[in-house]
Amino acid sequence: MSVTLAIGAGGKETEEFVERFILPLFKLKSLGGVGLEEMEDGATIPIGDGKHVVISVDNYTVNPPFFPGGNIGKLAATGSLNDVAVMGAEPKAMFDAIAVEEGFPLKDLKEIIKSMADVLNSMNVALLGGDTKVMPKGSLDKITIATVGIGIAEEPLLTLDRAEPGDKILVTGPVGDHGATILALQFGIKVETLKSDVRPVWPAVKALREALGPDLKSAKDPTRGGLAMALNELAERSKTTVFLDESKVPLRPQVKEYAEMLGVEPFALASEGQAIFVVKGGREEEALEVLRKAGFEEAAIIGEVRKGRPGYVISKTPVGGLRILEKPIGELVPRIC
Amino acid sequence: MSVTLAIGAGGKETEEFVERFILPLFKLKSLGGVGLEEMEDGATIPIGDGKHVVISVDNYTVNPPFFPGGNIGKLAATGSLNDVAVMGAEPKAMFDAIAVEEGFPLKDLKEIIKSMADVLNSMNVALLGGDTKVMPKGSLDKITIATVGIGIAEEPLLTLDRAEPGDKILVTGPVGDHGATILALQFGIKVETLKSDVRPVWPAVKALREALGPDLKSAKDPTRGGLAMALNELAERSKTTVFLDESKVPLRPQVKEYAEMLGVEPFALASEGQAIFVVKGGREEEALEVLRKAGFEEAAIIGEVRKGRPGYVISKTPVGGLRILEKPIGELVPRIC
Ligand SMILES: Nc1ncnc2c1ncn2[C@@H]1O[C@H](COP(=O)(O)OP(=O)(O)OP(=O)(O)O)[C@@H](O)[C@H]1O
Ligand SMILES: Nc1ncnc2c1ncn2[C@@H]1O[C@H](COP(=O)(O)OP(=O)(O)OP(=O)(O)O)[C@@H](O)[C@H]1O
Ligand SMILES: [Mg+2]
Ligand SMILES: [Mg+2]
Ligand SMILES: [Mg+2]
Ligand SMILES: [Mg+2]
Ligand SMILES: [Mg+2]
Ligand SMILES: [Mg+2]
Repeated sequence: MSVTLAIGAGGKETEEFVERFILPLFKLKSLGGVGLEEMEDGATIPIGDGKHVVISVDNYTVNPPFFPGGNIGKLAATGSLNDVAVMGAEPKAMFDAIAVEEGFPLKDLKEIIKSMADVLNSMNVALLGGDTKVMPKGSLDKITIATVGIGIAEEPLLTLDRAEPGDKILVTGPVGDHGATILALQFGIKVETLKSDVRPVWPAVKALREALGPDLKSAKDPTRGGLAMALNELAERSKTTVFLDESKVPLRPQVKEYAEMLGVEPFALASEGQAIFVVKGGREEEALEVLRKAGFEEAAIIGEVRKGRPGYVISKTPVGGLRILEKPIGELVPRIC
Repeated sequence: MSVTLAIGAGGKETEEFVERFILPLFKLKSLGGVGLEEMEDGATIPIGDGKHVVISVDNYTVNPPFFPGGNIGKLAATGSLNDVAVMGAEPKAMFDAIAVEEGFPLKDLKEIIKSMADVLNSMNVALLGGDTKVMPKGSLDKITIATVGIGIAEEPLLTLDRAEPGDKILVTGPVGDHGATILALQFGIKVETLKSDVRPVWPAVKALREALGPDLKSAKDPTRGGLAMALNELAERSKTTVFLDESKVPLRPQVKEYAEMLGVEPFALASEGQAIFVVKGGREEEALEVLRKAGFEEAAIIGEVRKGRPGYVISKTPVGGLRILEKPIGELVPRIC
């Protein structure tokens, strides 16, 4: 048996890998806050007074490292800070661990680091440290960057288990842009209109938290595995049925077309600049207004949390039929992030 | 201009790379504790009452992933926890970010994760989360693992700037074992007697802190760049001259022989299970005793901190001559850790 691409796709097989080969081996899995078992976007260390240090790590391997809308540096900085933000924490600091291939153009590396710096500087996030490794030519295809995002959150944390029947689900904007863009590049297709959506989601979290207080229940960034994976995780952790109204999901026509052309589920395509939110029922219109004012003009109310068979996502298709939206399986194209 | 192996060697060029291409770009470099500019083993976030959350990240790329004395999993867990320990913090938690090549034997990956778990379980350290990426066959040579070590420290932190003239320098045991072992393997030389020293150094830090209190001044793990780099960093940050008595440095005969054979400086070879300590002058014999009792039987007093030209390491050779021990430059063999 050997490692398959699917294990790294962020869908069902990744989850199974972690549950089977990682979870059972480690004696301690939390420090009293959110830990490994919750399988959340980040973990937390309680530091008293209802405050938590929130930490998240991701290793970015995106290929190509430069793409319309950004590069691996922008993605690596944004991604880990987004994972911290969707826990309800204000991003405060980051670390980066670069592995780069011998012979990689120094100019490109400088541009990548500059893009990381732009993200941090614009968000007032400190770079606290990092690590730099160079791998001999041929042993690494270009570059990978692991980043550690660190933030401070006050309870309640925006974990998925807080969602309850009656709550409404919003998304900050069109889904799948990043995934579609990288797929097209890897297939060598030139789609002028595709562009990664990579951007920080903290402004959305901050605005909603300020407006709704504890009525903002949960948040998640639909990265690998896309909206389909995120909603399935929501349904599982909250032990509810999630209802999705597909006609309400913002989806760019070029992403839709391109997904149809390749025969892939658009809701399984990664976003790198969107978040989904669960808010208390009755406050969704206000939440939508808040998101739009915060600059997330394409935000939408896309579904709700219902009683029913726990762990299922029921999706109403544009023509009115119902289908079960499953966790994505397999791997279409690797190195998406 | 392109990226050279030397940039990743952990010596002079790595330091220059960080100082030139990273430091100037980031607006914020600390959260009020130890930050990027200190170039320490880890950074810290003050949480009140003189306490700090200490965090360190390293990306492990060692080749081959299995070697006498351990594997990349044991190394990755131990390494980041050691960086946290030498800041004076008790290791409490870890994250891992795995990038693995498609087709890598699952059995080997399981053994690597098992080794990580053994380290954490034996030290009562929690695994809080991680990330798993699979890269297509040919785009990564086997596996890399980035780990984030997290600990809690009480002031004073064991930073290098605390060293003062009159202080004494100790090491926990023979230096260069890890470096020599990996070098031999990469050169295809079979040296039966070589074995990596990879092991946690926290027990040494803990014992010394308990015995000496604030008279334990500084600590550092001599990883990439070896003892030579560690002592140069000590001399620079404390603005002192460091004096090394080479005849006192524990060095296994097989490591010495092997380094001579290859014409490399043995003090530039990486250790992954040793720490150097700076203690207040007069307490060095007691410190030595404490280290031996804590299981570091080969510990030794190897030098002292002196007034003099700041940033220099003066080394007395076994035959009695004096030489300047420089920061290692260039890269002999990559992927040592
Ligand atoms: N190698 C690993 N070790 C420990 N935990 C892991 C590992 N890989 C994944 N996990 C855990 O599994 C959960 C899901 O991981 P995943 O990487 O899919 O989340 P994410 O970072 O939010 O998404 P993405 O990586 O697509 O941005 C997280 O809680 C994560 O901590
Ligand atoms: N890419 C990077 N970004 C930010 N800081 C970096 C980066 N690379 C190295 N540094 C910083 O430079 C200093 C030296 O790094 P280095 O990796 O040599 O230390 P170390 O982890 O103690 O040693 P080793 O990696 O050999 O175990 C550290 O303070 C580290 O935070
Ligand atoms: Mg996430
Ligand atoms: Mg993530
Ligand atoms: Mg390092
Ligand atoms: Mg170190
Ligand atoms: Mg280190
Ligand atoms: Mg992840």
